[in-house]
Order: sequence, then structure tokens, then C-alpha cells
Amino acid sequence: MADPARGFPHSEFETRVARLQSAMSAAGQDALLLTSAADIFYVTGFLTRFWESPARPWFVVVPASGTPIAVIPAIGADLMGQSWLTDIRTWDAPFPGDDGVSLLCDTLSGSVPATGTIGIPMGLETHLRMPLGDYLRATQTLAPRSFVDATDTVQRTREIKSEAEIAKIRAACAVADAAFAKVPEFAGPGARLDHVFRDFQIALLHSGADWVSYTAGGAGQGGYGDVISPAGPKPLQNGDVLMLDTGAVLDGYFCDFDRNYAIGAPSDAVKRAHAALFAATDTALSELRPGMRACDVHALFDRELTRLGAKPGGGRLGHGLGITLTEWPSFTPNDQTTLRAGMVLTLEPGVEIAPSKILVHEENIVLRDNGPELLSTRAPADLPILR
Amino acid sequence: MADPARGFPHSEFETRVARLQSAMSAAGQDALLLTSAADIFYVTGFLTRFWESPARPWFVVVPASGTPIAVIPAIGADLMGQSWLTDIRTWDAPFPGDDGVSLLCDTLSGSVPATGTIGIPMGLETHLRMPLGDYLRATQTLAPRSFVDATDTVQRTREIKSEAEIAKIRAACAVADAAFAKVPEFAGPGARLDHVFRDFQIALLHSGADWVSYTAGGAGQGGYGDVISPAGPKPLQNGDVLMLDTGAVLDGYFCDFDRNYAIGAPSDAVKRAHAALFAATDTALSELRPGMRACDVHALFDRELTRLGAKPGGGRLGHGLGITLTEWPSFTPNDQTTLRAGMVLTLEPGVEIAPSKILVHEENIVLRDNGPELLSTRAPADLPILR
Repeated sequence: MADPARGFPHSEFETRVARLQSAMSAAGQDALLLTSAADIFYVTGFLTRFWESPARPWFVVVPASGTPIAVIPAIGADLMGQSWLTDIRTWDAPFPGDDGVSLLCDTLSGSVPATGTIGIPMGLETHLRMPLGDYLRATQTLAPRSFVDATDTVQRTREIKSEAEIAKIRAACAVADAAFAKVPEFAGPGARLDHVFRDFQIALLHSGADWVSYTAGGAGQGGYGDVISPAGPKPLQNGDVLMLDTGAVLDGYFCDFDRNYAIGAPSDAVKRAHAALFAATDTALSELRPGMRACDVHALFDRELTRLGAKPGGGRLGHGLGITLTEWPSFTPNDQTTLRAGMVLTLEPGVEIAPSKILVHEENIVLRDNGPELLSTRAPADLPILR
Repeated sequence: MADPARGFPHSEFETRVARLQSAMSAAGQDALLLTSAADIFYVTGFLTRFWESPARPWFVVVPASGTPIAVIPAIGADLMGQSWLTDIRTWDAPFPGDDGVSLLCDTLSGSVPATGTIGIPMGLETHLRMPLGDYLRATQTLAPRSFVDATDTVQRTREIKSEAEIAKIRAACAVADAAFAKVPEFAGPGARLDHVFRDFQIALLHSGADWVSYTAGGAGQGGYGDVISPAGPKPLQNGDVLMLDTGAVLDGYFCDFDRNYAIGAPSDAVKRAHAALFAATDTALSELRPGMRACDVHALFDRELTRLGAKPGGGRLGHGLGITLTEWPSFTPNDQTTLRAGMVLTLEPGVEIAPSKILVHEENIVLRDNGPELLSTRAPADLPILR
């Protein structure tokens, strides 16, 4: 593995924050309060697995103009000090009674006029990564300032990736490509599914992943039942279809795609389902364009799979991708988000072969003005057979 | 590796819910609303890495009596159907405009009297893993029912582990013990720190981890600078101290401990610091008892390290452990939590050798009536040397 360049130049973050501040201005938000690992990484480059510990909240305030301010636990001061931020305020967390709230309120009251508005993401596909009680306390302390929903401010900015971000996601996809190529070395008739999952994670690390935040999959006769269960000890057997899916992480960016394998010769039903998924994905790769809506992609898959005699399965047939395993938009019948050039997306059609027997196919793309550019190496047209 | 038994019998969950309901009754909470992966796993056994996707909220309602109700995205119906729950309500998530909120409100209004109270964890070391806007909408829809803080209800219940849980954590610790024993095979002078991190994760998987949710560490001449940064490409060199720390996961339970290694012969300052950490940990292993408070453990470490001529470093000198990498309580000067038998805890004293040169030592224990029982294999008294 070549060593990929790490991190981003400061100009990348300056551009991101300028785009956020432009969106804030349009929405009438005097500051943005960010609490999630993804949003904070986006504006600062602060990358650590320490978020796995739920003990401490972390805050970044994006003012209407100027550089963001970090309000963070002291344990993060060294690492945040290596970022482009210069105003880093810390407290000794966790601190019962005032776990950074007064420091956060001081910071926000210094950045936002007394009757101003503070944007915080509170809509679809967001969480509040701080104690709810502390948030409610902050809204009282900071009144008459008001908190408003900044989901669109963040989402519309983050969902358009820079070329530097696209390069990171492409590199993460290459890690998974290399690991998928090794699957025949450890999966086949008689291999236990839980051992296959473990060996797949090892292959991802050997292929260059910094860490493996997500693996999933399934195996079953003529199709699998679901795609989110942990693996059990049951050995693979002839007639199974094996699916492996990964969100491997490289320098803070995810890939998210799967690959299917037939254990022994696949049935005609499985071959037909796979061919339909492959052809429907080809159609999407040919027809997607900026200006279409997320729901149009869902309709495209639905139409193509039905035309090919397959039964569309699954709820969401693709989604955004980048700093988290899944981002907006979602290819569902109800998501009206307009697709734009620079979005990194998964195409993830599913087919139901029979009840509890599904196949799911997935590729990662970046949408360009003239259509999709693949970031994952296209799956083989014929289902690979492991013997 | 022997295959550990997976999951828990239904009786385990019945006991947990009975304990929660007893605490709810004492606190006057008519239902409990749980949104986090850890809390939902605790009451249902629902174990999946799919939480890595922030797209969908998941809800479990614990009524005042009877079995919990799951209100979850349809994609989780199969897996939740394998749990002990029988009332599983689903919607097609993510759904713009109503992402499960009306279904959740219907469920809560059926479980809670019109003037009743709904507990939700909103205190220290908690998050709201659902969109804030949806929470605020639910509070309006469900009024005059009120939402109250249920941090203590959940915390005081979860922090006392059953013997079955203790066995899981012990097994996770054994995975890390085995991986730490392999560190001399891949770490030593000239090995790049990022490669060491990668090989350590591979060793954890080979040693039986289901997945590796957390690794951290550091390396530097005569001590490391911080303990949360990602690894860089710098090769280890003589005079460095290498620390590796892991939260490896087995059947949903974490270990969390570190090990230190000298690269070449350690300096006298490093040897003294390590000896002080080891001795202070021995004192804690000897003196901890139920009835002490979390802050007393901090004071014990502070006193012992100072007595031994070392400068205590770091903010939190240990914490709870189990379903998440870190749980309450926290060994800080301010945490008044009373220690009780059945708590699983980390002992994590740190020493500052010089500015930006620290050493951190860590063991995992379960507190018994007569004192700590080690779950990790005690670190060697002398710092291991890698040549």
C-alpha cells in the first residue's frame, strides 16, 4: 500500500467554513453549534477514535464570520491544538454539575447578539451529542437568543464534497476493493460465517484501513435474511449466497459497499436476481444526473428491477457517504433532495427473491456534471463462485 | 480461542427490566424512553454494528410493568424479532416529516397516563440519540405528560453487573491479554507507529475480538504526549515509551486497558514513573471497597503517587466499563458516586514525567464485597523492553 497523504491544508477548512457561513447568513443564523464527531471533524480536522467514549461532550462554535472556536475537554487540547483553530477553550471533563455548559454559554454569548439565533442540527438523520439537560439549560441561559434548526445549513454544505474529500473516499474504496479480492482466500464451503467476518476485517486492515468501523453481511440458501445481524458460527454451504459489506475508514473517510459471492454454483433464481441488480445499477450509472431528486433514483431502481422481472426489496436504495458511513440524502420514495455535482453516493438496489431471501448490490460514486464516476471498482457482472 | 457462549437467557433481561422498573417506581417514572445503542442493547440484547449509520433513530419504551416495546426502523425487525421482546413496532426509516415520531408518541401515550412522567437519560455522560427536533415535537404531542431526567434510573441499574456480564467483560479482557502478548512480534525499534496500531488491531481480531471499536496509544522519548491521537508514520526508536490501549468487543462487551513498553532500555525517570504507577495500582487493588466514593479513588491515586515522588497526571483516573468503552462513575475529584459490589471499573492512574511526557497504566476489575477482582491479567511489575 502506498501511504496516502494525511489531513487537509488549512485552505480546505477555510473554504468549508466560508461555505457554512454563507449558508448561515442566508438562513439568518448568527452562530452554529456543532456537537457530533462528524461535524466537528468537518470544520476542524480533529480526528480521534476517542469519540467511542460517551463520557464527554465536545463543542465547536462557528461564528457568523471568522474562525471557529473549540470548547472541549482538556484531554483533547493537545490534539485540537494541532488543527487550524487558534481559539481553544477547555474544561476538566467529566465535571458533575457543569460539564462545559457555562464555558459553552460564555462562548456563545460572546459570538451571538442578545436577540440573535444559534443554529444547531436537529432534523432528520441528526443527533444531539451532548446531554439533553445541558442543552435545555443552555437555551435558558442564552435566552432571549433562540436556537433554530441548522440541519440544512450543515447538510447542504457537507453533502458537496471537495476534490480532496473525493480523493479520500476513493482511497477508502480502494482499500475495500483490495480486501474483497482476498475473500476467496478465506471464504468458501465449510468456512464459518463469524470467521469470515473476522478474516474480512483483518484483510481490510492488511489492505490499508486505519480502522474498520463497520462490517456486516449475511449468508443463506438462495439469498440472505437481513443485512445488519452479527455473524454466527454456521458454516457456509453450497447453495448459499454470501454478502460482505464494509465501512472501512481511511484518514477519517468511509467507503460503504458490498460484494456478493455464490458458495458453489448459484441457482437460476439467484443468477437472475444478480443480473437484474447489475443491470439496474448500470442504468443508474448511465442515467443519474444533477437535478434529479433522491426519490427519482429510488423510482429508477424500482422501475428497472420491475422491468427486469425482479421484485425490488429494501427500503433505502442508496444514500450519501463520506465522513460517516451513511449521510443524506436517502434514495427513498419520500426524499425530495435535489442531487448536485460533487455528491458522493451509494447505489444500493435490493431484490427480494423470496420472503427472507434478499440480494443487495452496492457501488460508490461521485456525481459529476455529466453523470456518475465510480469510486468503487465495478463488481463483476457474473456472481463470483467460491468453491 | 474457545468459542464463548453468545447472548443471555431471557431471564437475564427480565431481571434487568425488573431492576429498572423498581428504580422507575422509586423515582415516579411511568415509562422510560431509551434511544442509545447501549441502553437498548442492555434491555433487549439487540446487537448490531448498524448503529454506525446515523440515519435512523431507534426507540425502546420500558413501561412501569411488563415487557419493553421496541419502536424501530423496519430494517431492524428481523433482528429485534430474535430478542425476547414480543411487541415490535416498525416504520420505514428514514422518513422525512415523521421519522417514527407519531409511532413513538402513540406507544408512549398508550403506556403513560395523561398526566404521567416519562424518564429519559439527560444527565452527565448521556446523549440524545434521536433528532432533537423530534424530541421537542414529542414533548408537545405528549403534554401534559412530562419528560424527566432518568440518568440515575439507568446508571444505578446498569453500573451493577450480573455475573453473566462480568464473564463477558472477563472474556473481552482475555482477548486483549492475548493480543498484548503478541506486541513484541510487531513492535520494536524501527517499527512505524501506524503499522504497530494496525498490527495490534489485527492481533486483537486473531485473538478473538468480534470487532475493535477502539484502539489508541502513543509513543515518545521518555513518555508520550497524549493518549487520543491517531498514529503517525514515525518509527519507534530507542528511548521511546510505547503505550497501546484498546476497547476490543466480544459479544457486545468491552475491555478497556493499556500496556506500556520501553523501546530499548528505559531511562531511570521512566522506570521510576512506571514503578510508582504499578505500586499505586497495587494499593488500589488492595484498598478499594464498596462504600468508598469515586472521588476517594482519585484521592487514593493522588496520595500514593505523590508519596512515591511522582506527579499525578491526567484528569480522570479510571471509570466504569461494560457495554460502552467508558461508563460512569468517573474517578475525578468531583464524582461523589458511591462504589458498590458488582461494579466493573478501570484503574487508570497517570504520571507526568515532564511537560507532554506522561505514562498511563490501566487495569480492569470487578469490585467485590472484599475488594477488587482483576479481570485483566496484571501488567508486569517491570516495564517490558522491546529491542
